[in-house]
Amino acid sequence: MKALVYQGPGKKALENRPTPEIAQATDAIVRVVKNTICGTDLHILKGDVPACAPGRILGHEGVGIVEKVGAGVTAFHPGDHVIVSCISSCGKCDYCRRGMYSHCVNGGWILGNVIDGTQAEFVRIPFADTSLYHIPAGANEEALVMLSDILPTGFECGVLNGRIEPGSVVAIVGAGPVGLAALLTAQFYSPAEIIMIDLDENRLDVSKQFGATVTIANNDGKAVEKVMALTGGRGVDTAIEAVGVPASFITCEAIVTPGGVIANVGVHGAKVDLHLERLWDRNIAITTRLVDTVSTPMLLKTVQSHKLDPARLITHRFRLENILDAYETFSHAASTNALKVIIEA
Amino acid sequence: MKALVYQGPGKKALENRPTPEIAQATDAIVRVVKNTICGTDLHILKGDVPACAPGRILGHEGVGIVEKVGAGVTAFHPGDHVIVSCISSCGKCDYCRRGMYSHCVNGGWILGNVIDGTQAEFVRIPFADTSLYHIPAGANEEALVMLSDILPTGFECGVLNGRIEPGSVVAIVGAGPVGLAALLTAQFYSPAEIIMIDLDENRLDVSKQFGATVTIANNDGKAVEKVMALTGGRGVDTAIEAVGVPASFITCEAIVTPGGVIANVGVHGAKVDLHLERLWDRNIAITTRLVDTVSTPMLLKTVQSHKLDPARLITHRFRLENILDAYETFSHAASTNALKVIIEA
Amino acid sequence: MKALVYQGPGKKALENRPTPEIAQATDAIVRVVKNTICGTDLHILKGDVPACAPGRILGHEGVGIVEKVGAGVTAFHPGDHVIVSCISSCGKCDYCRRGMYSHCVNGGWILGNVIDGTQAEFVRIPFADTSLYHIPAGANEEALVMLSDILPTGFECGVLNGRIEPGSVVAIVGAGPVGLAALLTAQFYSPAEIIMIDLDENRLDVSKQFGATVTIANNDGKAVEKVMALTGGRGVDTAIEAVGVPASFITCEAIVTPGGVIANVGVHGAKVDLHLERLWDRNIAITTRLVDTVSTPMLLKTVQSHKLDPARLITHRFRLENILDAYETFSHAASTNALKVIIEA
Amino acid sequence: MKALVYQGPGKKALENRPTPEIAQATDAIVRVVKNTICGTDLHILKGDVPACAPGRILGHEGVGIVEKVGAGVTAFHPGDHVIVSCISSCGKCDYCRRGMYSHCVNGGWILGNVIDGTQAEFVRIPFADTSLYHIPAGANEEALVMLSDILPTGFECGVLNGRIEPGSVVAIVGAGPVGLAALLTAQFYSPAEIIMIDLDENRLDVSKQFGATVTIANNDGKAVEKVMALTGGRGVDTAIEAVGVPASFITCEAIVTPGGVIANVGVHGAKVDLHLERLWDRNIAITTRLVDTVSTPMLLKTVQSHKLDPARLITHRFRLENILDAYETFSHAASTNALKVIIEA
Repeated sequence: MKALVYQGPGKKALENRPTPEIAQATDAIVRVVKNTICGTDLHILKGDVPACAPGRILGHEGVGIVEKVGAGVTAFHPGDHVIVSCISSCGKCDYCRRGMYSHCVNGGWILGNVIDGTQAEFVRIPFADTSLYHIPAGANEEALVMLSDILPTGFECGVLNGRIEPGSVVAIVGAGPVGLAALLTAQFYSPAEIIMIDLDENRLDVSKQFGATVTIANNDGKAVEKVMALTGGRGVDTAIEAVGVPASFITCEAIVTPGGVIANVGVHGAKVDLHLERLWDRNIAITTRLVDTVSTPMLLKTVQSHKLDPARLITHRFRLENILDAYETFSHAASTNALKVIIEA
Repeated sequence: MKALVYQGPGKKALENRPTPEIAQATDAIVRVVKNTICGTDLHILKGDVPACAPGRILGHEGVGIVEKVGAGVTAFHPGDHVIVSCISSCGKCDYCRRGMYSHCVNGGWILGNVIDGTQAEFVRIPFADTSLYHIPAGANEEALVMLSDILPTGFECGVLNGRIEPGSVVAIVGAGPVGLAALLTAQFYSPAEIIMIDLDENRLDVSKQFGATVTIANNDGKAVEKVMALTGGRGVDTAIEAVGVPASFITCEAIVTPGGVIANVGVHGAKVDLHLERLWDRNIAITTRLVDTVSTPMLLKTVQSHKLDPARLITHRFRLENILDAYETFSHAASTNALKVIIEA
Repeated sequence: MKALVYQGPGKKALENRPTPEIAQATDAIVRVVKNTICGTDLHILKGDVPACAPGRILGHEGVGIVEKVGAGVTAFHPGDHVIVSCISSCGKCDYCRRGMYSHCVNGGWILGNVIDGTQAEFVRIPFADTSLYHIPAGANEEALVMLSDILPTGFECGVLNGRIEPGSVVAIVGAGPVGLAALLTAQFYSPAEIIMIDLDENRLDVSKQFGATVTIANNDGKAVEKVMALTGGRGVDTAIEAVGVPASFITCEAIVTPGGVIANVGVHGAKVDLHLERLWDRNIAITTRLVDTVSTPMLLKTVQSHKLDPARLITHRFRLENILDAYETFSHAASTNALKVIIEA
Repeated sequence: MKALVYQGPGKKALENRPTPEIAQATDAIVRVVKNTICGTDLHILKGDVPACAPGRILGHEGVGIVEKVGAGVTAFHPGDHVIVSCISSCGKCDYCRRGMYSHCVNGGWILGNVIDGTQAEFVRIPFADTSLYHIPAGANEEALVMLSDILPTGFECGVLNGRIEPGSVVAIVGAGPVGLAALLTAQFYSPAEIIMIDLDENRLDVSKQFGATVTIANNDGKAVEKVMALTGGRGVDTAIEAVGVPASFITCEAIVTPGGVIANVGVHGAKVDLHLERLWDRNIAITTRLVDTVSTPMLLKTVQSHKLDPARLITHRFRLENILDAYETFSHAASTNALKVIIEA
């Protein structure tokens, strides 16, 4: 089968690989119908994710059709249309039993990382019963690729952790795909204001279309002053960090109101300054989270009831044989305006 | 009346001052029967609290008897025995209505800071109806001085924010009065382990007597390794920072388990390094809080029902005329083994 | 001044009454600009509310302008435009401190019940600082009459207690004003389905316009079967009782799914059968509540940010001198299609 | 093997039965070392549980040693010492993923009900990975039989649902084994008062030893007056119904304070009167629950850390060959003072 293979820092190729087989009784083999590329895949390609060894098929997102199941799989059958979760959950360990699948001692984020992933014609899914989700008949399957990772990430790490409530004032620092996923799902809770902060005018335009009430182009570095002015000096109830660099986290520290929350979504590669000398008495919470995908059933219901349209995040489509073009487009988002790109097998 | 007055950095004196008068309809004048000294008073004396101007009577803790009330006070009458809360709450503003009295726009921590405090024979209490608490008949009034600040601080900032549950593993970094207050009130929730970390052997001995299951004398700087060894490499569910310096916060970052909480209690004067490059995917929460004293009624019930004995925190007693000795004793805790000192008017 | 006075069961009249005066330091006198009639007023007129004695000016809803304030009132001044809360909250008692204003030991629902109410040119408001809300400049003041009672009631007793979440399936039994208030505010949380059940076709039509996804005219008594069929035999996550009779509560018992909530909003005059022999093992919660109006600030924010349009509940308008006509219209809602009627002073 | 078999209403016998075999890949066969009898077993014997057909081996509680595991079982191995949960959880269905194992669509309470149970030398455990719990080395295994059902039932249905907090006033109606389990675990949260109500003097004596602060022998039917007198007319924050008859539920309705909770634990065979005409405005919650055993890991931690001693519930011990005597003793608790009886294989 065709598969996109990581070949070491800076190198990748579309290779021919053997079709995966059932290895454990709890495995399923899924024919991947559509997949996508994540910012994390770009990190791997830069060599930033040491766990991911050369030779690995990348990809942890996708929808497909079950091809085969192991003897222990009872909830899925060949022919079932499924969403692949980016997190593999054994369903048995202490973390899984508490809904913290991200830290599953037998799984977690392994797909396209320490085992082969979804950017291929077929993928082996461990713990299939607790790591796949049935696609309801008649659903827009392509749109549901967004439920593998990007939407649960924005929702769980940003919106749920951020405790957004009706009437809240929210700021999202970073209008990339995950910031936009937070923006879309924040609206489940009817906040009064959602302020999007970014450098990219196109992404801010998209933010407006997606429901932001205010956008701030932070090219002048004055986002903090602007947010404080907009909120009458009060600051925001929820500040969502969706970039992963110190500067944007510091912005969140500066704009969170007493009693508010900083919900970190970004993947950080360096420490940040936590200004406890200003924050120790502010009654705030700072949260971090690797997505658990525990909200996938809830998100599916919101898609089915038209409260959420994940297709809005899709900007480009490619065939699997052209996946290198897809990477090219996705990795030059500033010029291509790419958000999420669909790769069709 | 006699009063302990801050006279600028490094200077204090027992002065004669006029007895305070009702200034607003919502004021009460309380005859202070017992008060105490807080670590914060020492900070003021170092000049670390610019809001507090020379000439201020210090003290934000105490019990006493209501002497006079303003026309708008309905819940208290002359002769009532009361606990003075360290936080003045107007009961009307948005913050007060949400139980966040610490950020009351008309009050907050003002006593012994921007208005005269309790280390005197009498004190004026603004917003008396919502800033004083009735002492039940027959209570140990001296013990209730601990409900002005130290116990609600340890409980709200450390225990409640730390979300301690039956079976939890808790570490408290810092066995000073506020760490011990957290230790005492953590036991309301039946955690499995409470690990106390400090440098002072006496305070660790006290911790053992107060219910710590393990104590770590961190003179060798190996507290992190020891906690990880004790917990089988898992770390702690709740790490309470009760010192207020970067090193102890960093310890908390290193020992918190995925899904756990770092509850900051300490007053910090400098920023700390937040290792988001290690913590971004650990599903943790970090909380800060200035005590709201919203739990005072709950704490009173636990004292009345003998679930909590605040008197255990009291090590020394002085007459008001000897308050300078009290300061001497309290500020040399390492040699005097002082925890909380009572000053009797 | 003109005032609508209860004269004993079945009797009411527009009388001339003296303008109220400040009685306590915490009082305000408000010139009532707009008020409305509540279903509870009709109950009083039937003689169902023994606490309300003949001679009482009715009405517990309205907006107006502060005329005078007592010496202890600090948050409001003459000329301020205000919403009158149906619940008077002293802000001091244990219940008020816990946000349960409905059970304020000094207030609660007293207006138009045990003290004179808002269906008059002026009204005395006790505990003004904690029982009035400022109207933001430029707001639609008439619409805000709906924030005195009907919207917080539907929201707190139905929606908040009902724990509605994104993707939830909700049924509201009763499409009168309070059921519709629950319908409007339920949408803050993006439920997947909101099923409205009533006998009145007009109210069901209104429900559709207000966002119900399904309506059931229960003239054939088959609502339970229909709900179960619509939900694939699963039942609803949240069942809101908004009528106040045994039959509608029994309907809720029959349609709530395991793990769900029955949120009672209706005012009941009789006991109901609780089928614990079927429900003991269903992991459900049943909640009751007299509105606390603790959500009024949140609701105001949702109105200001256009997430909620309370004006949709207003169907008729009258001058105060014609308030008897207003009662006539409101009490014959089946023929007049009245929801809420505005009475203008 | 020897097994206690239900032979239809009023009839049971110790029979010889074939040893169970692995039927599904997710099964384990457990050699039962100790089991016990539940009040529910007595209900089955009366013919009150139609799902349970004659020929069924009874019992849903016990500890044992894993004998064999199916191909899909990964967390348990032959020789492992285990607690058998009364609830079988597939770990995959929507209910299991939400922690509501009681309503598992593939399991739930099936053991000793619709499949053969633990009152035998061996038992087949479906979904072993998610329905068994490892016994820590050195634990008192007999005491852990109490973690199969009685302690999680008292804790989850009574204490967790009852939202007990430090300082709470709690009443438990019914001092049988499940009421006592609630009493023991309620103390995790340091309530101020725990009032036990029963007719049986011995059980009330036991209650005192187990930590009740007050006991009420309700032979005169005056429990409600007494509770109201004890609480100064206020009532209790949490009322736990642990009997399962209308009268005790009605008692709970009469003593719950505004803002309080009635947590139903009892198994009810008849409807009860819910006095909504008195309760509609009291801001209470009523909860029902079949135990989920989701708290078993937490309870194990509290046992290991000596916060809970389950052995206190054990009053009698029998050999499996004498299980009919064990039933005789358990079913005549009033004369034998039996709480939980241990049956040793």
